[in-house]
Amino acid sequence: MSHDPLYFDDLKIGDAFETATHALDVDQIKGFARQFDPQPFHLDDDAARETIFRGLAGSGWHTAAITMRLLVTSGPRLANGILGAGAEIGWNAPTRPGDVLRVKSEVIGLTASRSRQDRGAVVMRSSTLNQHGDVVQTMTAKLMVRRPAAIPLCRGPYGSDGLDQ
Amino acid sequence: MSHDPLYFDDLKIGDAFETATHALDVDQIKGFARQFDPQPFHLDDDAARETIFRGLAGSGWHTAAITMRLLVTSGPRLANGILGAGAEIGWNAPTRPGDVLRVKSEVIGLTASRSRQDRGAVVMRSSTLNQHGDVVQTMTAKLMVRRPAAIPLCRGPYGSDGLDQ
Repeated sequence: MSHDPLYFDDLKIGDAFETATHALDVDQIKGFARQFDPQPFHLDDDAARETIFRGLAGSGWHTAAITMRLLVTSGPRLANGILGAGAEIGWNAPTRPGDVLRVKSEVIGLTASRSRQDRGAVVMRSSTLNQHGDVVQTMTAKLMVRRPAAIPLCRGPYGSDGLDQ
Repeated sequence: MSHDPLYFDDLKIGDAFETATHALDVDQIKGFARQFDPQPFHLDDDAARETIFRGLAGSGWHTAAITMRLLVTSGPRLANGILGAGAEIGWNAPTRPGDVLRVKSEVIGLTASRSRQDRGAVVMRSSTLNQHGDVVQTMTAKLMVRRPAAIPLCRGPYGSDGLDQ
């Protein structure tokens, strides 16, 4: 993997990336839950045992946020950063205190914008795995990626989805 | 809206809910970004002006997390909490410091589980709006909701998506 920033035209279907790891612990799980998802199965060990999770589990939105951190800090180095127009996300298994998460991503779609020469849409499928190799989350995201530096990024008004296809 | 918990059989297509509000500020935006989405347009006012956002904008994952908080604390009171199997999410416009966010939700799908009498899948579409009424995020989530209390919730192994349809 190159250390130069990647433009839309540098990417090919099938390009794959793998991030560094993130170690999840009970304080992170409860801290995120207190702020954003205050439900018993994310906050309280005893209460969590009586739920479908059968023990404390991280919020799915916490998994999504950690996935984003891993992609931003050690995933594909896209020229304009990781700019998502939207995503489809599925939670396959709970995360637990002590999990060590990492993300594997693959480019599965590339569409140059019809109306804006300075950008294209990249569809990237990412799986978030724990230390056992279990997939805890799948995400398919549509990213806006700049075309080569020779074509300046238009600074026009923020479009309906930033892609204007 | 009832204060009794809502079971799968209490819900109808078209049922609508609206949450309380959440006031977003610059410290929250930068704090979330430092933890989960450390990119210039979420962290630094000057750098953000040079990007497509043309000023500091909140992370889309922060909007998603705030949406979850609003739904959990003041949205539909579901019998087993808000348990998502997955979601499709779109970011329509950036969030800004000073925004006051709220969520409007509607039930758009109901499917009883074939194999498990104790649950059903509820598809809920939620729009997150700012104080001007602009939609900043749309989300369509698939939730697992218990059927009436008379039917005990199976405590079997965590299924592929918790719904086992």
